[in-house]
Amino acid sequence: MSIQSVSGGVCAARGFRAASCAAGIRYQGRTDMAMIFSTVPCTAAGTYTSNVVKAAPVLWDRELTEKGAEIRAVVVNAGIANAATGSEGLRLCEETAKAAGQALGIPAESVLLGSTGVIGPQLPLDRLAAGIQQMAGSLEASDEAAEAASRAIMTTDTVNKQEAVAFELPAADGKGMVTVRLGGMSKGSGMIHPNMCTMLAYLTTDCAVDGALLGKMLRRVVKDTFNMITVDGDTSTNDTLLVLASGLAGNAPLLEGSAAARLFEEALYTVCRKLAIRMAADGEGATRLIECRVIGADTRDHARRLARSVVGSSLVKAMVFGKDANCGRILCALGYAGVDFDPARIEVLMENDRGRICFYREGRVLDFDEEKASDIMNGDRVSFLCDMKTGPAEATAWGCDLTYDYVKINGDYRS
Amino acid sequence: MSIQSVSGGVCAARGFRAASCAAGIRYQGRTDMAMIFSTVPCTAAGTYTSNVVKAAPVLWDRELTEKGAEIRAVVVNAGIANAATGSEGLRLCEETAKAAGQALGIPAESVLLGSTGVIGPQLPLDRLAAGIQQMAGSLEASDEAAEAASRAIMTTDTVNKQEAVAFELPAADGKGMVTVRLGGMSKGSGMIHPNMCTMLAYLTTDCAVDGALLGKMLRRVVKDTFNMITVDGDTSTNDTLLVLASGLAGNAPLLEGSAAARLFEEALYTVCRKLAIRMAADGEGATRLIECRVIGADTRDHARRLARSVVGSSLVKAMVFGKDANCGRILCALGYAGVDFDPARIEVLMENDRGRICFYREGRVLDFDEEKASDIMNGDRVSFLCDMKTGPAEATAWGCDLTYDYVKINGDYRS
Repeated sequence: MSIQSVSGGVCAARGFRAASCAAGIRYQGRTDMAMIFSTVPCTAAGTYTSNVVKAAPVLWDRELTEKGAEIRAVVVNAGIANAATGSEGLRLCEETAKAAGQALGIPAESVLLGSTGVIGPQLPLDRLAAGIQQMAGSLEASDEAAEAASRAIMTTDTVNKQEAVAFELPAADGKGMVTVRLGGMSKGSGMIHPNMCTMLAYLTTDCAVDGALLGKMLRRVVKDTFNMITVDGDTSTNDTLLVLASGLAGNAPLLEGSAAARLFEEALYTVCRKLAIRMAADGEGATRLIECRVIGADTRDHARRLARSVVGSSLVKAMVFGKDANCGRILCALGYAGVDFDPARIEVLMENDRGRICFYREGRVLDFDEEKASDIMNGDRVSFLCDMKTGPAEATAWGCDLTYDYVKINGDYRS
Repeated sequence: MSIQSVSGGVCAARGFRAASCAAGIRYQGRTDMAMIFSTVPCTAAGTYTSNVVKAAPVLWDRELTEKGAEIRAVVVNAGIANAATGSEGLRLCEETAKAAGQALGIPAESVLLGSTGVIGPQLPLDRLAAGIQQMAGSLEASDEAAEAASRAIMTTDTVNKQEAVAFELPAADGKGMVTVRLGGMSKGSGMIHPNMCTMLAYLTTDCAVDGALLGKMLRRVVKDTFNMITVDGDTSTNDTLLVLASGLAGNAPLLEGSAAARLFEEALYTVCRKLAIRMAADGEGATRLIECRVIGADTRDHARRLARSVVGSSLVKAMVFGKDANCGRILCALGYAGVDFDPARIEVLMENDRGRICFYREGRVLDFDEEKASDIMNGDRVSFLCDMKTGPAEATAWGCDLTYDYVKINGDYRS
């Protein structure tokens, strides 16, 4: 049983259709709304931002997914975040869900919402409603529709992010295997930091799985995928990761702890990991992906903290941008991760497809070949491998370099 | 009894002399070593980086100050941090202290050390020793010597940082009052983040005070001064704050809890606060100081965390650089500070000597005068005032904007 990449993004799984439109929420001359629709009621699960200031759609979605509502659609807009918008922002969520419910002939309580963009302004309900009307009439289950939807939710992203996989699970009728698909799209570029980000990610699957188990698997997977990326240390008000399961694949409903459930979770991990890495690589202004793999840590949680500290360091990020192997900064970032270790014991390497050098061992920065280091740093991806030499736990985090363009994008985002 | 600014930096207090020289450690054409010498043995106290990876001089100083050694001198170099240098780095500390002890005719164990610069390389002992020899012969108690010392310890700093104050305390002989002085110098520009930084700060006073009480006061004061500044979120390997007390003012030795002790602590706070704010304002590439004052918090610790989260946010920093009042970002940064609060209750204002606007109240970002906001943001200092409306606690944090020059300085620091 293997997991294979397939096309189709959010439309890869049976039962899902997508649409997008240019509603003119804030951007001009581009699409800025997307809709995902399921032909049948779905089980659903979500994970949301840990920020105390939660955007209105986050509150809306959390309530629905936590009470186990049957979900039929997701409506997303880019341009305005509907965050810090008070009771009016919550009212606009209700109105948006109602408009979608009417346009699609489903209950408003089966509609999830997502918003990304500037914090503060109120959403223009008339344009949202017009956009919903237009999208309801143009839903399609096609690669093109999925691709267009993934473009419509972008803000400062430079590329759209989609992924889908297929795998086989035992059939519900006990006769052989059926193909199950899981796909998704995501956006996120700035205000990205562990514990969910200005990151929106929507996954769809035709797997038969109940909402509680789906939620459990999602929370496990997110710890090693979306929560392991950082662009700028700012945990946003809007982060949302949703997964909808239509059950149309015809598999025997997943049982916790079964081989089938493990395979599904691995597929979920595969899709989330790919989308997460693409978001890190597309961090605002980024020119390259930074990866930090920590091995030999005493616990998984410590490994995660150490890895995130390295990819989150402004000085490491600026160093990768400048292709300057000022590697003491990696040590420094490990040192303030809040995890105790013996600096004399650990080993740190830099590597990618261009080569590998060890630059720290036995408590000191080694002399290394500067030319080789600079060649490695010219790659699209720079990986740091930190061996803590204390235990069996490992974790990987992803980030991106800090560039002039990051400053430019964020010094003048609203104009 | 009032606290007044005076000139003289580290030489303001009786008994202290300073010197500096161009030892050619790593920089060319500038001074890069400084020495502070006391004519009498001093009580001393220090606070050091919380980074697990501690530079060799940090380990050296910590051991001496913790065992209550009598201190006579401090030797500091810029250019190389003597961090991640293993056992060889520690040996170099011993040799440096020995060289200073010999040149000054004092025990090596009465010499504290400080280093700042690149992490990794070993210090060149011969140049250090030659520099020490030269400085031992040119010690002076003068404004000029103090000023030159404060320049010699700079790395990417654009201005030197000095401060000194004078105040009166009851005389040791019971006959009236004596004047006590407390002065200091500091450096720090990048790798600066709460909990001590690539920040070196050296304070001298002629106050009579024992080392234990001095340490207690220093630890209290540092929480609201040096630990409330951030430039880039990177807590360095070298942060050191030392205070030396010669006792030559002739005051009655301070008793814990006395009015005299309170006045001394206030003077200590005044000097540390001024040096800290100057470091934040001189953050690498900074064009303006960002201040965040949190009031109405339930606890002091929560107020500190909230204030630091705002001045530490890359998005807030980039926004101040771009003079773009995208104020939702303040809310976002408060929200991920790890402190619970009710977003519907708090109020946030932006202010400085150019004006004041309230931009968040009752759970939403208000409409505000963009022209006025942009005028305020043109000031040298931009202050955010966050009223949490839950309790009596307050705290202030300082940082600086994030600019193209920060990226430039740190993308190419070694060359």
